[in-house]
Amino acid sequence: MRRPEPVLKKGRLEAFSDGVLAIVITIMVLELKVPHEAEWHALLPVLPVLLSYLLSFIYVGIYWNNHHHLLAAARRVNGAIMWANLHLLFWLSLVPFVTGWMGENAFAPAPTAAYGAILFMAAIAYVILERAILAIEPADSPLRRELAATFKDRISPVLYSSAIAVAFFRPWLSCLLYVAVAALWIVPDRRSERAVRARPSEEEP
Amino acid sequence: MRRPEPVLKKGRLEAFSDGVLAIVITIMVLELKVPHEAEWHALLPVLPVLLSYLLSFIYVGIYWNNHHHLLAAARRVNGAIMWANLHLLFWLSLVPFVTGWMGENAFAPAPTAAYGAILFMAAIAYVILERAILAIEPADSPLRRELAATFKDRISPVLYSSAIAVAFFRPWLSCLLYVAVAALWIVPDRRSERAVRARPSEEEP
Amino acid sequence: MRRPEPVLKKGRLEAFSDGVLAIVITIMVLELKVPHEAEWHALLPVLPVLLSYLLSFIYVGIYWNNHHHLLAAARRVNGAIMWANLHLLFWLSLVPFVTGWMGENAFAPAPTAAYGAILFMAAIAYVILERAILAIEPADSPLRRELAATFKDRISPVLYSSAIAVAFFRPWLSCLLYVAVAALWIVPDRRSERAVRARPSEEEP
Amino acid sequence: MRRPEPVLKKGRLEAFSDGVLAIVITIMVLELKVPHEAEWHALLPVLPVLLSYLLSFIYVGIYWNNHHHLLAAARRVNGAIMWANLHLLFWLSLVPFVTGWMGENAFAPAPTAAYGAILFMAAIAYVILERAILAIEPADSPLRRELAATFKDRISPVLYSSAIAVAFFRPWLSCLLYVAVAALWIVPDRRSERAVRARPSEEEP
Repeated sequence: MRRPEPVLKKGRLEAFSDGVLAIVITIMVLELKVPHEAEWHALLPVLPVLLSYLLSFIYVGIYWNNHHHLLAAARRVNGAIMWANLHLLFWLSLVPFVTGWMGENAFAPAPTAAYGAILFMAAIAYVILERAILAIEPADSPLRRELAATFKDRISPVLYSSAIAVAFFRPWLSCLLYVAVAALWIVPDRRSERAVRARPSEEEP
Repeated sequence: MRRPEPVLKKGRLEAFSDGVLAIVITIMVLELKVPHEAEWHALLPVLPVLLSYLLSFIYVGIYWNNHHHLLAAARRVNGAIMWANLHLLFWLSLVPFVTGWMGENAFAPAPTAAYGAILFMAAIAYVILERAILAIEPADSPLRRELAATFKDRISPVLYSSAIAVAFFRPWLSCLLYVAVAALWIVPDRRSERAVRARPSEEEP
Repeated sequence: MRRPEPVLKKGRLEAFSDGVLAIVITIMVLELKVPHEAEWHALLPVLPVLLSYLLSFIYVGIYWNNHHHLLAAARRVNGAIMWANLHLLFWLSLVPFVTGWMGENAFAPAPTAAYGAILFMAAIAYVILERAILAIEPADSPLRRELAATFKDRISPVLYSSAIAVAFFRPWLSCLLYVAVAALWIVPDRRSERAVRARPSEEEP
Repeated sequence: MRRPEPVLKKGRLEAFSDGVLAIVITIMVLELKVPHEAEWHALLPVLPVLLSYLLSFIYVGIYWNNHHHLLAAARRVNGAIMWANLHLLFWLSLVPFVTGWMGENAFAPAPTAAYGAILFMAAIAYVILERAILAIEPADSPLRRELAATFKDRISPVLYSSAIAVAFFRPWLSCLLYVAVAALWIVPDRRSERAVRARPSEEEP
């Protein structure tokens, strides 16, 4: 406790992020417009919206999971981390908008490309957040070793960019790529988990 | 602390679930469209929506209650539990949609069956979450004994399935079944509560 | 720790209630429909909605404040308290609906009476919650003495009922009564605060 | 612990504020109406709404950041602080409304002035909250020294007022002023941070 420690409480940053992500994941369901008819076929136009909702639900779930791991591994937070975190939340808050646009237009080219663009920006924002957290970790922090860019980090932006380009010709192929990246990430990021374990455990289990 | 413990914090999983459930239970009220007229009879078309809101409020309340008990009994969380939890939240996030559809169509067959289908899926998702939590409990965990399937667990899916089938002929009978299952569960799940009490208490009361 | 303690965590009940109340207090703003015109007079029809929003914001604020004090004084929670709490949240979740109805119809008789009816039900629900909390307090609990019904508790339901009756003839008088009750309660309920102070302090300040 | 301490828990006030701010920052995205067409040009009318959303996102982020710092520095909360906090949240809850009005009318004079008026009121409310917190700090509190009005505090209301006046002639200039104030504040308020550090650290880092 000799050197000055940032006084920002990690817990409140986590709570705020949890709040925003919980709202983002839930208000998407408001795009599912309740049909006025009581017949099953009235659900048909809702189907693509439901599918894009499912995809986005999984993506926000992945971000929440990895965010959870990353912050559990972070020892401290400062102003830069706060703004990097808000920047990430900004792009994720646009997910319901592009989800609705893509769903209501049944995976047409422009909305499908826009969906990929938001995912791409969120991925970049996540990397910036990782860097901001590393910047105040000590030089020998195990998190530093663990977060060294790996295959998964390198391939995701490439796949998103490809999906955006492909959307103009074969939007269904873009959707397949989005599903592929989701599948790649659905396993929670075990790197930060290992990083926490490597330092003397002061966290509750 | 000798064997490696998962570092995921149970508290943050609970906070995120609380956030999503709080939003799910509250945005349903947005389906209650404010009538443009200022007369009492203007509330008449809102009545079935209000009734279905009340039913869903109770159901989400039951899930929150039991989720609360189940996680209080869980000693640790891992990636599998996180995804099982998100899977449960996904089905519960669709409750406002089917509630609105059933309410606005005054308990017509298709929406009433769809309502039962979502409840059925949520029930299955809850069982999967229970199994994921048990999977990392020690062999002699009291939770293991307590969560051994009981009458209530066995009868609920049967009642939901019956309600779905019956909805096509007598939707009001399905609603009666939904109310019956809710009544069955409204008593919070005391099994996990007992399981916690059976192990040395480290929880605050 | 000898006698069996309920294992429900008070913290999670508080967190869930905070979530629901935060959403209730905020989604009311969605009833403020953004005018399509860019002139000041376009705000005129929004004015009664804004006024009713302000009144409801204060009411939900009062409930949050008193709920906060009451639960800080409660030593433990059980299933009955949970359901009494959900019952209170149910009535409060209907506040945005009646606020919108009253505001959009500029304080017409029926909506103004409906507004009072929801406030009346919420007041009853709050008393039920108080009783549920007292039921598991020890016989000599200072909270028991403090919550003995006082003038404020007795007069509020009387004023709400009067407001409902009066709404059919002079709705503006009802609104005045709602404002009066709010003014009466705006001072946070110091009774539970004193009750906490009377017992050996284990709470953080 | 000899003198009577207020029993209100700071944590719950922070949690409730986090909830409201998380909802305020996220429901603004609902003003981004999903276009019915699937072409890129369909995004054009959304653009000013998106820009005003971005500005408001940053403002709410600033308030959350500074609120976070301020409350971390506060040692205790009482009823006056609670109501000062609710007063601040009230003005911030109106941000989505004026954001939507300004965005949908592409920064027309009246909505742009209204936007500044809400920012002005929120700034006043923040100062009131600071004063309410100082009122119960001891005379020698470092927070007292730190919160002594500085350049930034004095200039912000002046800039907001100017922006309101200017909006009637050159709305784009008002927007520039809003951006300028945001840039001024984007650095989190380090004063309270230093105040915490100056007292014996009982906070976690």
